[in-house]
Amino acid sequence: MRTNYCGAINTHYLNQTVILCGWVHRRRDHGGVIFIDLRDREGIVQIVCDPENAATFHVAEKIRNEYVLKITGVVRHRPEGTVNLTIHTGEIEVLVNSIEILNPSLTPPFQMDEENLSEAIRLEHRYLDLRRPAMQKNLRLRHKVTMAVRSYLDQQGFIDVETPILTKSTPEGARDYLVPSRVNDGHFFALPQSPQLFKQLLMVSGFDRYYQITRCFRDEDLRADRQPEFTQIDIETSFLSENEIMALMEEMIRNLFRDAIGIDLPAPFPRLSHEEAMFKYGSDKPDLRIPLAFTELTDLMQDVPFQVFRDVAQKQGGRVAALCVPKGGELSRKEIDDYTHFVAIYGAKGLAYIKINSLEKGMEGLQSPILKFLPENVIKAIIERTGAQAGDLIFFGADKAKVVNDALGALRVKIGHDRKLVSSEWKPLWVVDFPMFEWDDEDNRWKALHHPFTSPAEGHEDLLATDPGKALSKAYDMVLNGVEIGGGSVRIHRQEVQTKVFQALNISDEEANEKFGFLLNALQYGAPPHGGIAFGLDRIVAMMSGTDSIRDVIAFPKTQRAQCLLTQAPSAVEEKQLRELHIRLRNSGAIAT
Amino acid sequence: MRTNYCGAINTHYLNQTVILCGWVHRRRDHGGVIFIDLRDREGIVQIVCDPENAATFHVAEKIRNEYVLKITGVVRHRPEGTVNLTIHTGEIEVLVNSIEILNPSLTPPFQMDEENLSEAIRLEHRYLDLRRPAMQKNLRLRHKVTMAVRSYLDQQGFIDVETPILTKSTPEGARDYLVPSRVNDGHFFALPQSPQLFKQLLMVSGFDRYYQITRCFRDEDLRADRQPEFTQIDIETSFLSENEIMALMEEMIRNLFRDAIGIDLPAPFPRLSHEEAMFKYGSDKPDLRIPLAFTELTDLMQDVPFQVFRDVAQKQGGRVAALCVPKGGELSRKEIDDYTHFVAIYGAKGLAYIKINSLEKGMEGLQSPILKFLPENVIKAIIERTGAQAGDLIFFGADKAKVVNDALGALRVKIGHDRKLVSSEWKPLWVVDFPMFEWDDEDNRWKALHHPFTSPAEGHEDLLATDPGKALSKAYDMVLNGVEIGGGSVRIHRQEVQTKVFQALNISDEEANEKFGFLLNALQYGAPPHGGIAFGLDRIVAMMSGTDSIRDVIAFPKTQRAQCLLTQAPSAVEEKQLRELHIRLRNSGAIAT
Repeated sequence: MRTNYCGAINTHYLNQTVILCGWVHRRRDHGGVIFIDLRDREGIVQIVCDPENAATFHVAEKIRNEYVLKITGVVRHRPEGTVNLTIHTGEIEVLVNSIEILNPSLTPPFQMDEENLSEAIRLEHRYLDLRRPAMQKNLRLRHKVTMAVRSYLDQQGFIDVETPILTKSTPEGARDYLVPSRVNDGHFFALPQSPQLFKQLLMVSGFDRYYQITRCFRDEDLRADRQPEFTQIDIETSFLSENEIMALMEEMIRNLFRDAIGIDLPAPFPRLSHEEAMFKYGSDKPDLRIPLAFTELTDLMQDVPFQVFRDVAQKQGGRVAALCVPKGGELSRKEIDDYTHFVAIYGAKGLAYIKINSLEKGMEGLQSPILKFLPENVIKAIIERTGAQAGDLIFFGADKAKVVNDALGALRVKIGHDRKLVSSEWKPLWVVDFPMFEWDDEDNRWKALHHPFTSPAEGHEDLLATDPGKALSKAYDMVLNGVEIGGGSVRIHRQEVQTKVFQALNISDEEANEKFGFLLNALQYGAPPHGGIAFGLDRIVAMMSGTDSIRDVIAFPKTQRAQCLLTQAPSAVEEKQLRELHIRLRNSGAIAT
Repeated sequence: MRTNYCGAINTHYLNQTVILCGWVHRRRDHGGVIFIDLRDREGIVQIVCDPENAATFHVAEKIRNEYVLKITGVVRHRPEGTVNLTIHTGEIEVLVNSIEILNPSLTPPFQMDEENLSEAIRLEHRYLDLRRPAMQKNLRLRHKVTMAVRSYLDQQGFIDVETPILTKSTPEGARDYLVPSRVNDGHFFALPQSPQLFKQLLMVSGFDRYYQITRCFRDEDLRADRQPEFTQIDIETSFLSENEIMALMEEMIRNLFRDAIGIDLPAPFPRLSHEEAMFKYGSDKPDLRIPLAFTELTDLMQDVPFQVFRDVAQKQGGRVAALCVPKGGELSRKEIDDYTHFVAIYGAKGLAYIKINSLEKGMEGLQSPILKFLPENVIKAIIERTGAQAGDLIFFGADKAKVVNDALGALRVKIGHDRKLVSSEWKPLWVVDFPMFEWDDEDNRWKALHHPFTSPAEGHEDLLATDPGKALSKAYDMVLNGVEIGGGSVRIHRQEVQTKVFQALNISDEEANEKFGFLLNALQYGAPPHGGIAFGLDRIVAMMSGTDSIRDVIAFPKTQRAQCLLTQAPSAVEEKQLRELHIRLRNSGAIAT
């Protein structure tokens, strides 16, 4: 039907007759001549309709934006002064011989090059929104990324194996999406939150290296950037150590960034223990583009007169830390107040600070409401430890460690952005040596920090029973620019270890068997040492695209109320369908049709 | 952890020290020496434990089948007389220095090389079943196939775009799997039966060439070889004609068969109109490996004394046809009776036949209960048309065309297999020129033979209103060895045509809008001419593997009762989960826990 893509024509085709198909991006009448910007997925080309060709000109006059055309014409140089070197087709134009309208179009609700559209409009007319060059670019990048991942993993001997979407509900972690069974009255499938158990079973089966780019589902209240269904690059391998797995995976990510967007990530990625990450950045996914770190002060504050600091410092689990902001002396009273409100979101009761006006004038050179409560030697030590210079400002956090970490951690990132301290380099790292468990105050029990199949660190097996809070795991998270893009671990491959972990988690044999019996069985029949990782594809592509929202890299995403504005899913269904599934609506004001 | 795969060692590694990890396939004690066949995904290697190495020998004595081992040893020639050239490692063995038991194993419920296992046992212990070399081979072949498909489509400019799994219920065609929405009380998502509407929307968006290897879902009563979830190679493209799409797709399949299993399929594939396929083979997916075809006799039977034939021949929609079986004269009375019972399954009330004992003796040379009812000139014409030779047998079908086609069509295939007439060549073809609609006796209305988005054939648009039964479509099915492996069509891209089709199908504007409103809207905003196809991946891989069941090429399939014997899905769920989803069980003997 055509000889070329519109966006691919250049001076190479001069004087050739081409047949092009595409959409009318814009029509202009200029000096009696009609110019059409014809668009296809490869770009835009300028079409010229001369009134001398009366039949064609007559058709051209009827043309409106977004009409689909087939045109035949000859490629020629653009007249001098109209050349546009910023686009591939900018040196040429196509003089039309004939035009066929393949399909007309109503006036679209927005222009394809309109910016700042409301997301609701975009999602409702997604088929038009996806015509916009930015969205075309995003989804093509996504394709490129998945092809690069597949090609790397294929070369490394990984085998793509599909695992079930209709599977078993295991109400652990997030909430399951359920699917009522018609054949088995009263029973339900669940959509997988991840293929975790299946990929471990594939290792037990001896596939050795598995991967899958697969959809996962979580029925959670959606935060700004979550979707009910999302895509995971899911990987598992046998007979490799933690370090070998991590090396293989960071090589994959390096290849990916090089192939897809021409970015060279460092080799190897730096590593940070979970403890150090919390200590220095208050976060297990620190953004290393921001050149700020905490300074530990808890030990310094044991005996100071300032009660707020002293009490916290003396208490088990309390922490006092400082965040030194270079040139923070410039901050106005209002800005400091705003930051105080900001950290309150994270539970901080205040935000003490010291401004360093000068280092040469002793206490005279400092400015702070808390100076009078702190001994001079302590202040000196603070300045020494933080390395503060004249013109800097030191913020303080003092509370339970979690509050300090959350509040100062968020403040660190905010100030980094506000004060344009963020490096333009990409900053990946591994966070390692995670604890096995974290204490759940609500349920009053230990919970798995990753998931209950994560292997304890070498030599930490006994701690599972004696001191679970101290047990470290063989888990690793890959973090990029402050975002966790992947997480994984070496798994437990011996049944007795798995049993100990369930005991630490206070999961009874019966419960474990009911939920994970098939995995526990499998571990008894010769499970190999194995481990893996899962990457968030949507997030990675969004970061590469430079967009804040994963919705911009998903063709048909849902809103935060988990609705598809295009198809109106979810929707009411027929009563007959519910009957077949052996369910009824609870709410008698039933919406079923 | 290891230096090589077990199955990859050969004489190239002679005298080298290797570290291997794998499963104990079999242990033999022979002349005081212990031999272990160690297995990994690449194959089996023979390990020798000499009693002189006492420590290692002691470990070896404890080893049982399916233990996971790590061994270090030296590669050496096998002693003469023990060489096995049928396997890659058959010339060598590995003399062990050290053995580590990485994980023991209970005695498995079956041996990895056991055959004729019950499928229930295999599915229940799928992680063991998948260790069996045949299953490893099947799933690796599947990986190879998907990689070959992706690579071809990528080269042809197709873009992999993911479409939603949580989508809208459109109760047309098969039954939907439903997913209750927690956020939207009384509303339900449906799992997609295919991404049909989304891929058309992507064409409207201008992606030009789309593909996806994706899961589809149908909640149907499972026939022998159906699964609740199955995988489709889903493809759509714009601005191409029927012939161009078909050429592109058969090239893909040819590449696939060559790359994955080294089979060269013919180029181009032969084409058969739907009418001709029914006429000659009684099937829209004829198995061309079977060198038998129907002979039309309806016209011959208009005035014969044999009432059964005459009545049918005179009736609208009746058909009399013959199937000539070469050397069918050998068939015993019992075999003919069995075939008579066989065709009864398809509604045939009998199975008349004529045996040709000799062609030289006139009527004397023939043998049949119906001879006396047929004039000699008719019998002559039958013999002439069928080309029957001495020793052949002619079967007759006479009934409504559908019954004749179904019965004689099935008989053709059965006889082909019974009498070993099936060619060993692969026989692909296209079936084209399908009718747009077929009459549904039950609902008393026209139904779409493919789906309601299929474009009518050139010039057949007006027939939609005047004579819907005569309207042909731009649909095409790819058939291989009697199996439909792919089906597609050029779609309707103009809204007014889509409206006419809905009218022919007696779908009201309101109903169409409610179900497909978003597609109808999209067609109004500049939809390009487009078309596509979907292939059944499971079926293609099963055929390549030479297995009868798609369950043998799916890692974790479900039974015919749509259950997973491994995980026990579907399962009962907690009452709390149902409450959150605003549903309750109808059956008060509720199974919820």
